[in-house]
Amino acid sequence: MLDLSGQPHHDGSALYVSTQAPRLGETVRLRLRVPRGEEPDAVFVRSTPDAEPHYDRAEPAASDAHATWYETAVRVANPIVRYRWLLSGPHGRYRWLTGTGVAEHDVPDAYDFTLSAHPAPPDWTADAVVYQIFLDRFARSAAADGRPTPAWARPASWDDEVDFRMPHVPRQFYGGDLDGIVEHLDHIAGLGFNTLYLTPFFPAPSNHRYDATSFAHVDPLLGGDEALARLTAAAHARGMRVIGDLTTNHSGATHEWFAAASAGPEAPERSFYYFRPDGSYLGWYDVKSLPKFRFGPELIGRLAAGPDSVAGRWLAPPFNLDGWRIDVANMTGRHGADDSNLAVAAALRATIEAVRPGGVLVAEHCHDASADLTGSGWDGAMNYAGFLRPVWAWLRSPGYRPAPGGEQTYLGVPVPIPRLPGPAVHATMRAFAAVTPWRAVCASWSLVGSHDTPRIRTVVGDADAVGVAAGLLFTFPGTPMVFAGDELGGEGVRGEDARRPMPWGRPEAWDAVTLERYRALARLRGSSEALKRGSLRWLAADDDALAYVRETASETLLCLAARGPRRGLLLDAHALGASEGAGLANVYGGAADLVVRSGAVTLPSEGPSFQVWKVR
Amino acid sequence: MLDLSGQPHHDGSALYVSTQAPRLGETVRLRLRVPRGEEPDAVFVRSTPDAEPHYDRAEPAASDAHATWYETAVRVANPIVRYRWLLSGPHGRYRWLTGTGVAEHDVPDAYDFTLSAHPAPPDWTADAVVYQIFLDRFARSAAADGRPTPAWARPASWDDEVDFRMPHVPRQFYGGDLDGIVEHLDHIAGLGFNTLYLTPFFPAPSNHRYDATSFAHVDPLLGGDEALARLTAAAHARGMRVIGDLTTNHSGATHEWFAAASAGPEAPERSFYYFRPDGSYLGWYDVKSLPKFRFGPELIGRLAAGPDSVAGRWLAPPFNLDGWRIDVANMTGRHGADDSNLAVAAALRATIEAVRPGGVLVAEHCHDASADLTGSGWDGAMNYAGFLRPVWAWLRSPGYRPAPGGEQTYLGVPVPIPRLPGPAVHATMRAFAAVTPWRAVCASWSLVGSHDTPRIRTVVGDADAVGVAAGLLFTFPGTPMVFAGDELGGEGVRGEDARRPMPWGRPEAWDAVTLERYRALARLRGSSEALKRGSLRWLAADDDALAYVRETASETLLCLAARGPRRGLLLDAHALGASEGAGLANVYGGAADLVVRSGAVTLPSEGPSFQVWKVR
Repeated sequence: MLDLSGQPHHDGSALYVSTQAPRLGETVRLRLRVPRGEEPDAVFVRSTPDAEPHYDRAEPAASDAHATWYETAVRVANPIVRYRWLLSGPHGRYRWLTGTGVAEHDVPDAYDFTLSAHPAPPDWTADAVVYQIFLDRFARSAAADGRPTPAWARPASWDDEVDFRMPHVPRQFYGGDLDGIVEHLDHIAGLGFNTLYLTPFFPAPSNHRYDATSFAHVDPLLGGDEALARLTAAAHARGMRVIGDLTTNHSGATHEWFAAASAGPEAPERSFYYFRPDGSYLGWYDVKSLPKFRFGPELIGRLAAGPDSVAGRWLAPPFNLDGWRIDVANMTGRHGADDSNLAVAAALRATIEAVRPGGVLVAEHCHDASADLTGSGWDGAMNYAGFLRPVWAWLRSPGYRPAPGGEQTYLGVPVPIPRLPGPAVHATMRAFAAVTPWRAVCASWSLVGSHDTPRIRTVVGDADAVGVAAGLLFTFPGTPMVFAGDELGGEGVRGEDARRPMPWGRPEAWDAVTLERYRALARLRGSSEALKRGSLRWLAADDDALAYVRETASETLLCLAARGPRRGLLLDAHALGASEGAGLANVYGGAADLVVRSGAVTLPSEGPSFQVWKVR
Repeated sequence: MLDLSGQPHHDGSALYVSTQAPRLGETVRLRLRVPRGEEPDAVFVRSTPDAEPHYDRAEPAASDAHATWYETAVRVANPIVRYRWLLSGPHGRYRWLTGTGVAEHDVPDAYDFTLSAHPAPPDWTADAVVYQIFLDRFARSAAADGRPTPAWARPASWDDEVDFRMPHVPRQFYGGDLDGIVEHLDHIAGLGFNTLYLTPFFPAPSNHRYDATSFAHVDPLLGGDEALARLTAAAHARGMRVIGDLTTNHSGATHEWFAAASAGPEAPERSFYYFRPDGSYLGWYDVKSLPKFRFGPELIGRLAAGPDSVAGRWLAPPFNLDGWRIDVANMTGRHGADDSNLAVAAALRATIEAVRPGGVLVAEHCHDASADLTGSGWDGAMNYAGFLRPVWAWLRSPGYRPAPGGEQTYLGVPVPIPRLPGPAVHATMRAFAAVTPWRAVCASWSLVGSHDTPRIRTVVGDADAVGVAAGLLFTFPGTPMVFAGDELGGEGVRGEDARRPMPWGRPEAWDAVTLERYRALARLRGSSEALKRGSLRWLAADDDALAYVRETASETLLCLAARGPRRGLLLDAHALGASEGAGLANVYGGAADLVVRSGAVTLPSEGPSFQVWKVR
């Protein structure tokens, strides 16, 4: 077992860092928690103002029976400040603390903590619980019946099976629309979700609409511009937010800009794409239907910068979107020697600030997004790399075999999904969080599945394992994002199969246990500042269990995820800040309350199980 | 003991990568060595063209009794390509190989291998052995006697003790000059050094001359412009190169540009510095004598860009410098929100290419330089972080206590120099090499001391431990750089004290054993492509010993560094590529030859000791 309870700890949360939004030149107070009895002779913070190491000595600022807190102040000398702790002694001991924990030797800066003087993500992202809606498959209003079926579409009845063979998959058309969502806001809000993320609503010759024909209006098949305005108004009236989905990496080949560009080299839109001398053009992955954008000032202006840009227009009345999820954000503006990614992101961020202050900008990104999350653009990313993958790799059912025609890879890694022990999962989650500014982790979307992946239920095999995944999802730093249908126990062997229409008319297909777990977890998160804004302090990891604390100055929650039954786990009560005889009330999961005896608490051995106890 | 002999291996050397200077769009062949019996089911290289993961499957390309070699081709889709190996199976095994070794779980990109399509460092840096000369202290020609002593100086006789108390330290003036160096080229060349690195030769009101008064001419106290031309001509005649030292972070407060800037706000030079509204200015670390440069096009042009710039002029005839070491390169162009560091470096690099193709550009950098070494500027850095520090921390004498007035820190880290075990040292060296492109590691300067540090002899305590440090220095990837005097066993308790005049007239003060070791090591390196351009494959690390192989397609050397006596170390002969009964001839250090018996070689237990055996 990996026992981390004796480790010194620091992270980017308010318990340890005095502000989430420092300004250039400001001084920030930093704190370090050291277990009692483990105090070093001297503690310093190393930062690198103007790229030269500088040491600020930290002094003990508070102390109780469980821990000593060291504190110092660090100047935000540059827009990005990387820092780490140095613990010296006793007895010649030499320790660095970075985001991955303690190293007793020199390490590069890769895992240093980060402060950023760039604009901060909106604070509400910590309160957000996001519900992802794939528009064609969520709900169909009565108005949809009157709309003509487009030529590309193969109409399906709502309860038809999804056909995920090519070339049918993008053409199968169920006809979900925006008013259908309005009709089901009760379901969404009743579960505790307060933010909608809509896949693209622009017209396109596919059911997924990532190949837009125009960014100028909402697809009439979805109800048109008025339907979007109705939806955002209805959501806002309930205190919910709505986030759109924009492709900045490419347009569709049927897009009006691409049509203009294709008409001849003299069109201003010609420069928006990568045309070759022979008149052919670069498509995303050489897919001809998705011509890749090439950014120059004109395209940045049309798409991203300013109130009249595409990004700006939909944030303004009457649509009032609360931000954008950006499709293929990782590749946006990148090709060969071209890299305008951070410039595009900065333009989008500035537009949001100008048109809808407090809006959010989230990047689709499926591997290490950290290099993109220290600029002045993206607030966060979809956290596939640091959350979904390790959760999958821990909870993947032992007997899992990819279905024929199903997803054969580990989210693109050309191997079957591995099944890894808890310490490996801890190492991955911790390392990816370490390379990312804390506030960007918090503004990133934790997820266990999306319209691009098999369903979590299919990967982990049963409802109890889904419950463990959901427990992690709602108790980790980061905005939980749930793909509509997961809460009903939906299945799907690949992304396209996961896009099954919501079984509104078939309540017998709903998994009531899973639904209730999602509801309870969303409620728990909504009621807890520790879960929304608290520190994450790992306590222990063994093959089948992960234990950690979420903590603010006034609240401590102990979380235990167990993928299977195993021996009971003994936790040092000092690490919980709990004194002898103290009781820890179970607040989620149904296990018994805990009591500190002989300086420890014994965690239950049941599994699969997810439990939360309130320490204080 | 950390046994690495069974690990798969890859690095950036020619044994594993088909070119050190790929062009954008080119395909590069990559190879992986897997010990026999450890073969995975499938091997891939993951790269991220345009920032999206992509997998190229590798196939077995060669195999012998010891290893299987996998090979694949990867396209250099972007100027910087980060990549890693994926080893899948057998039995569900899931492994990533990055520069720090194998991880059995997902890890961020921080330690991925790197290919760069930016201009490559000159190939001769692999052949270079650099001798650092602190001009005031190396040698004084007869001509120096006729020169007037400047007002700031406190003249010293050559064999006077160095006074390293402030304010005397920068004023004590011994009068070494450039013709003095010419007189001692026999000593330098005879030791096997082929490259001189001269500390600044510009006029300045100090003995170190890092506070230049002008960049327009060579200090007359050093013999003036003609003396530099004589020195470079004499060096070039022997096939030696000469590298200068330029401050791009600051000038002296007596500099002609700063004088012009101080005269009034209308001077063009006013923009070269950070003047505040009250007329005061920013100094490096607020030192008033070192006003910090602020870069704009005019200063870049004057200092760095083009043949008429300072950087360009001294590379051209009649001076013909072979490159620049840049002082405080890490901070250059960086202040607050300003960061023109990589732009300055790129300008310097372009100037070198234009004026003296094949010249080198080396950055002073005392911590993690990796972020600066992936651009198109710096060829390499002074490798304090990834070489000097770990070597010091391993070899620091057990009884070492900083002398009163001596250096009290661990090269700036505010703790005494730690004494760390071999595996910790391996971890540090490997991690710093991992974050740096291989060719930048090779073009960086390995060092165990400089004019800015205590002498290695003082840190490690005796000649035998110096021998171990020197052994590492000459057998590691990277250009060995020796501070003149180290080879004589020179001592010094801090940087200023290390600047003791060379004891030319006192041969009794020379440490003949150390001198002979440096000579033999330089000769060994000069004769071995494996040491100059070979792979570095770690085999084992225990507290007191480090064993590794340097290897090309036709040569394998086994190196053993031991800081003290310990148990003999048994090495798997397969890891050496050596068959039963094979003999390994000792080629440095004096230990017995080795013979493979029962599939292993037994390394000797003596120490301190540094040994090299030729495997083939």
